[in-house]
Amino acid sequence: MKLATIANGSADGKLVIVSIDGELYLDASETAPTLQAALERWDDIQEPLASLTARLVAGEGAPLDLARLAAPLPRAWQWLDGSAYTSHGALMQKAFDLPPIETDLPLMYQGLSHQFLGPYEDVPLPSESDGIDFEGEFGVITDVVPMGITPADALARIKLIVQLNDWSLRVIAPVEMKTGFGWIQAKPACSVAPFALTPDELGGAWRDGRVCLDLAVDWNGMRFGNPNGAPMAFGFHELIAHAARTRSLPAGTIIGSGTVSNPGYREVGSSCIAERRGIEIVDHGAPRTGFMRFGERVRMEARLPDGALAFGAIDQRVVRAEASHD
Amino acid sequence: MKLATIANGSADGKLVIVSIDGELYLDASETAPTLQAALERWDDIQEPLASLTARLVAGEGAPLDLARLAAPLPRAWQWLDGSAYTSHGALMQKAFDLPPIETDLPLMYQGLSHQFLGPYEDVPLPSESDGIDFEGEFGVITDVVPMGITPADALARIKLIVQLNDWSLRVIAPVEMKTGFGWIQAKPACSVAPFALTPDELGGAWRDGRVCLDLAVDWNGMRFGNPNGAPMAFGFHELIAHAARTRSLPAGTIIGSGTVSNPGYREVGSSCIAERRGIEIVDHGAPRTGFMRFGERVRMEARLPDGALAFGAIDQRVVRAEASHD
Repeated sequence: MKLATIANGSADGKLVIVSIDGELYLDASETAPTLQAALERWDDIQEPLASLTARLVAGEGAPLDLARLAAPLPRAWQWLDGSAYTSHGALMQKAFDLPPIETDLPLMYQGLSHQFLGPYEDVPLPSESDGIDFEGEFGVITDVVPMGITPADALARIKLIVQLNDWSLRVIAPVEMKTGFGWIQAKPACSVAPFALTPDELGGAWRDGRVCLDLAVDWNGMRFGNPNGAPMAFGFHELIAHAARTRSLPAGTIIGSGTVSNPGYREVGSSCIAERRGIEIVDHGAPRTGFMRFGERVRMEARLPDGALAFGAIDQRVVRAEASHD
Repeated sequence: MKLATIANGSADGKLVIVSIDGELYLDASETAPTLQAALERWDDIQEPLASLTARLVAGEGAPLDLARLAAPLPRAWQWLDGSAYTSHGALMQKAFDLPPIETDLPLMYQGLSHQFLGPYEDVPLPSESDGIDFEGEFGVITDVVPMGITPADALARIKLIVQLNDWSLRVIAPVEMKTGFGWIQAKPACSVAPFALTPDELGGAWRDGRVCLDLAVDWNGMRFGNPNGAPMAFGFHELIAHAARTRSLPAGTIIGSGTVSNPGYREVGSSCIAERRGIEIVDHGAPRTGFMRFGERVRMEARLPDGALAFGAIDQRVVRAEASHD
């Protein structure tokens, strides 16, 4: 099942269900007005959603205008982002001469969740000198998760899978990281690809709580990276159990994988600029690639084995934020 | 103006307006069903709220049953907690032999905001061995804050002031802090005192964006600390401007002061156990005070110059979380 949210001026938008080819949609708002509402009574709405799916399969539905789509969850009660690809962390450590991170547990920070940008929205940021970088990621959305859940039980709490861009400001990030308090200024709002998929739609590419698809990242129309989502040190179910050790998670919690990265990053490329700069530092003693400039674009997409886009595409540009003082 | 939320089974509860002595209340839900809704159109509802206030002053209202109160915002879109008392940080650094935190900027982390416990609710936590500690704090609630706001403009975005307990698990905290990613497991849901006050209710005790009141903390009925809120290194308006440099803040954002601490902590005591343990480490080489046990209580309250409770009191006990697996 493929769900999306049409921007309609309200904070949470309107829930629609989309045909597997992404061409047609049916209004699902009689079943649940918003995706958040759907996640809050997920089990109860599976039957009406299945009826809508059957109608889409039968060829019903209106043509979907991608430009009208918001993020599947335009806001969420919680966004917890992991950093589960060890090849990324190891390279960053080597390139920037950082001390090793002393933990056997998953790495995770809590980010802003009151705003997720849509896949084609401009991304307003205050300054190029902050080091504007993209981070291509996969993520999952849960329903309610009780405190103390096991990884095995957590797998069943994963209701939807998404693809996202965890925007990062690289000049600020190390300064904030050194405080130990995590990131505030270094992590503005994330962007999310159009479609949230139930795990079954990924077939064999969803295994061990991991999204085993390539994530193709293009910067200004040039291929920048195409790493696969498989080699997470911890699966999403383990990230959920980690997060829920001392808290319950509300329906609509989004958990991110961290920047997708593969040990073969020299061949497959990277899903963030910082990683390429890390390789350049290792090879040449200094980075050669700059960060993003206002007006530049990034596109991210993942394709299923049959070549179809799984989550649709993120395709957007960064722009200078308007001075918006009172 | 004194606002509170009566638990009514819904996620956000019901908004009420309370007499200044805390004895009587009027239903405010025709003006705004919830405090979150009130904050989203704050300017528009000042007139109806003033009418309700006038009726309370005239002696109208039903007796307020404190036991029915939830946190003023039982959930919020964003909770950002500072650490603005330098005497606390300096002591922790000395006692635990930590490297100095290299920043001139405010310290701040993003915590879970999908759940704020009411002032008398039991606090369920999984294990005493995590090092259960309270942290008495003051906080502010904003309406919408645009990205890039100045500290001067941010002052006017502070609509309400609250008092809260930022529960901390001290065995986990340093482990997570070392990762640089901030805290997930070490920071379960916070508790909030009954009443959210407009700044004018504090009179001269609200100055320079600081709550200049003593915060009395009792642990199991014994006075533990009574530090004053004044000596923040950054005022709340500066914390807001810091938070909003690369993001806008939604209405209902809660910003915390961090553990209230005074340079004279040996005389006035502390608002968290970790600080007392820090003093013991400095004095004796090892801590003598243990952390909280299940069944133990903490009470926190701040009084106005006339002796009246400003925010009501937090008075609650920690309990073992039920194993709540599926």
